[in-house]
Amino acid sequence: MTTPREYAREHRTRFVEELKTFLRIPSISTLSEHAADVRRAAEWLAEHMRLVGIQHVELVETGGHPIVYGEWLGAGPEAPTVVVYGHYDVQPVDPLDEWKTPPFEPTIIGENIYARGATDDKGQLFIHLKAAEAYLKTSGRLPVNIKYIFEGEEEVGSVHLDTFIAENRERLAASSAIISDTHILGPDTPSIVYGLRGLAYIEVTVQGPRNDLHSGLYGGAVDNPALVLARMLAQLHDEHGRVTIPGFYDAVRPLTPEERENLARVPYGEEELKAETGVPAAWGEAEYSIVERIGARPTLDVNGMWAGFTGEGAKTIIPARASAKISMRLVPDQDPDDIAQRAVAYLQDLAPPTVTFSAKTLHGGKPALIPLDSVPMQAAAAAFETVWGKRPIFTREGGSIPVVATFMDVLGAPPVMLGFGLGDDNLHAPNEKFYLPNFYRGIETVVEYLRLLAEMS
Amino acid sequence: MTTPREYAREHRTRFVEELKTFLRIPSISTLSEHAADVRRAAEWLAEHMRLVGIQHVELVETGGHPIVYGEWLGAGPEAPTVVVYGHYDVQPVDPLDEWKTPPFEPTIIGENIYARGATDDKGQLFIHLKAAEAYLKTSGRLPVNIKYIFEGEEEVGSVHLDTFIAENRERLAASSAIISDTHILGPDTPSIVYGLRGLAYIEVTVQGPRNDLHSGLYGGAVDNPALVLARMLAQLHDEHGRVTIPGFYDAVRPLTPEERENLARVPYGEEELKAETGVPAAWGEAEYSIVERIGARPTLDVNGMWAGFTGEGAKTIIPARASAKISMRLVPDQDPDDIAQRAVAYLQDLAPPTVTFSAKTLHGGKPALIPLDSVPMQAAAAAFETVWGKRPIFTREGGSIPVVATFMDVLGAPPVMLGFGLGDDNLHAPNEKFYLPNFYRGIETVVEYLRLLAEMS
Repeated sequence: MTTPREYAREHRTRFVEELKTFLRIPSISTLSEHAADVRRAAEWLAEHMRLVGIQHVELVETGGHPIVYGEWLGAGPEAPTVVVYGHYDVQPVDPLDEWKTPPFEPTIIGENIYARGATDDKGQLFIHLKAAEAYLKTSGRLPVNIKYIFEGEEEVGSVHLDTFIAENRERLAASSAIISDTHILGPDTPSIVYGLRGLAYIEVTVQGPRNDLHSGLYGGAVDNPALVLARMLAQLHDEHGRVTIPGFYDAVRPLTPEERENLARVPYGEEELKAETGVPAAWGEAEYSIVERIGARPTLDVNGMWAGFTGEGAKTIIPARASAKISMRLVPDQDPDDIAQRAVAYLQDLAPPTVTFSAKTLHGGKPALIPLDSVPMQAAAAAFETVWGKRPIFTREGGSIPVVATFMDVLGAPPVMLGFGLGDDNLHAPNEKFYLPNFYRGIETVVEYLRLLAEMS
Repeated sequence: MTTPREYAREHRTRFVEELKTFLRIPSISTLSEHAADVRRAAEWLAEHMRLVGIQHVELVETGGHPIVYGEWLGAGPEAPTVVVYGHYDVQPVDPLDEWKTPPFEPTIIGENIYARGATDDKGQLFIHLKAAEAYLKTSGRLPVNIKYIFEGEEEVGSVHLDTFIAENRERLAASSAIISDTHILGPDTPSIVYGLRGLAYIEVTVQGPRNDLHSGLYGGAVDNPALVLARMLAQLHDEHGRVTIPGFYDAVRPLTPEERENLARVPYGEEELKAETGVPAAWGEAEYSIVERIGARPTLDVNGMWAGFTGEGAKTIIPARASAKISMRLVPDQDPDDIAQRAVAYLQDLAPPTVTFSAKTLHGGKPALIPLDSVPMQAAAAAFETVWGKRPIFTREGGSIPVVATFMDVLGAPPVMLGFGLGDDNLHAPNEKFYLPNFYRGIETVVEYLRLLAEMS
């Protein structure tokens, strides 16, 4: 009889074609003009889950983009029950002119498939459907019970997910969870993320004059809102790269010596960072390694900034206002609401009397750390070792997956982050891609994980 | 027989309708997609000059937008010859959503006509055609010889005008010049600008990573180009509002006690500035008055600034690059090229090793001061007094009209700035307008000026 891993290998070409169809739907959740596309992606996904053999598939309305839910509970009450989480929404694509291939026309070049959402998160989500198919189309059953939650609002802060989970706590009851939305250290260096940063995101505006002013007729007597904003932003870090918001670091749990030792094993430093990103030099807190700065330290970034005339040529105005989108990555035990409030209060203090300041909070998510000694975590390590031939490294990642904290807090199901992306996959950037060998091995790793989890539980 | 002033009064309604037609043409010189509109405005203008009775009208090709030239030389060799300068190009209109009426559908509300270019400079240019018409359709002759130069590139730095003037020095020979592109202090407070600031305009970019990066996966280890730019811009002024570029003030000619006394008569201070612009407070060099800061001191402004994601919602990236448009208003004897070079060199010095810095110069113009004791200046004062019933105040204005320096240097013809705008006309901003009583009185003032200039010469 064909084993699930054999099945997965035999159907690779078709799996990639199906993924392409999924990737063609521009499900950009943050742009209201793409709301219909997001729904179309949800409907396609639900239909595909039914085809694979997943049961009770439904679109759950949320007030925003729908959640796609489905389950397979045929493994019996003694078997473990796993929640699998993924998201079918994607980031915007601008700057569009920097894409080498159209973002919603998936294109295979070498061993990579290029498209928005290829890795984050349609490709990784799809791994779970294909692993389920490999079982259901061979043995006709899964080794464990699975409840699938695929949301369409991850890129806008999972605004309705916590409510859905809280309201369906019993239906979603599980002993563990899987999230595939992270990356491994290299094509031949498997790793498992056990720590994720949280997020606080604000947008601030300083307004000077009512309208744009002629810079000749007023320049020198009117404070320039773009320069005011620049002066304020310039004060958000000290010369050592530390964030200056009062109390920003108060709740930060210090790294243990064991953690620092573990993270020091990650083969990633300034040279790798420079090669991967093209920056002329690294930056940040000198007393922490690059891996620690990214995964284990809170940070503040400006994600967007705008004022005045940004078109071609010269326009001689004093802009009426200037704005910035500012996000902070958080680590345990920082609280997103608390940090957003502190940031806004500090910026309000920094605003001079020549402008009026306003701010809004866009979204937030809690940071998380997963215990390493649990059965699911050990099963995951064993699954990677089986497929990759190498024990994975445990690492902390800088991104934010707010649902991790929700799974731990509300369901009590510690999530395992089975991620299959790579560091150079250009998530959230032009030319996002997924390394196809990781797609194939990802499916086999999930197949092995489900078996090992059943055996070890 | 009808006098020219009577003629001008009788035909006001038609003059406004003709101006509306001129204002409807969106001749935005800085946007390449409007190049055909700029040419259309030039052709309309040339045709209208012919209708008025101006002779030898032609479109002079420049390599950019055309110059419209025309002349009337029937006053004889003994009479003064005046160059009249204006521009038929206009500023861009964004932010479009802040206009209360469509920028290219001229709309009269109360005593104002609203449209892009209403004051700057189509409306003021049109005053000269109507003054000429008032003479030519009544007495059949002008009191002086006039050479009209109307350019289409004033808002992009008059890039081809200097060459045109230098190459046509003999043809353009004149004893004086008129420029109507400034404003008076109030509807009942006529004034003549004798000083104008120059301009140096640069655009700078700092580039960090090759592409936008996921702020979670790299934040904390990569310097953020938006923050880098903010830190650099924040250093361009000290805490007293002085520009910190080394050598920036070296060539500034100090204000004389007489000039300071004269400028102190201008009825404009912090309260007027706040009412006019809506700023919560004034700003700038405390040891200079508002009028001095605007008219007699060099300044630096950010005219535009952009980085990363500026759309709706949240996108969690570290932008690959950040840019700013920076302009400096100059006073005698600062040189635009020298100042642009100093600014670029200083910003290059401020750029940290975590980014690469690049800059380009967009355009420049020399500052100018016009002697008060010349016949044209005294004739202008007398013309204002005749029409307005009040002696005008001599003042310095903050804007830049590069051609002023060219007229002085190349033609040796001291220009008189007969301006008819108002401080609240929203030049370069949404809801640009022209106060129609100033349009009417402007025509009569030019009628009187030409007569007085002939008599006093």
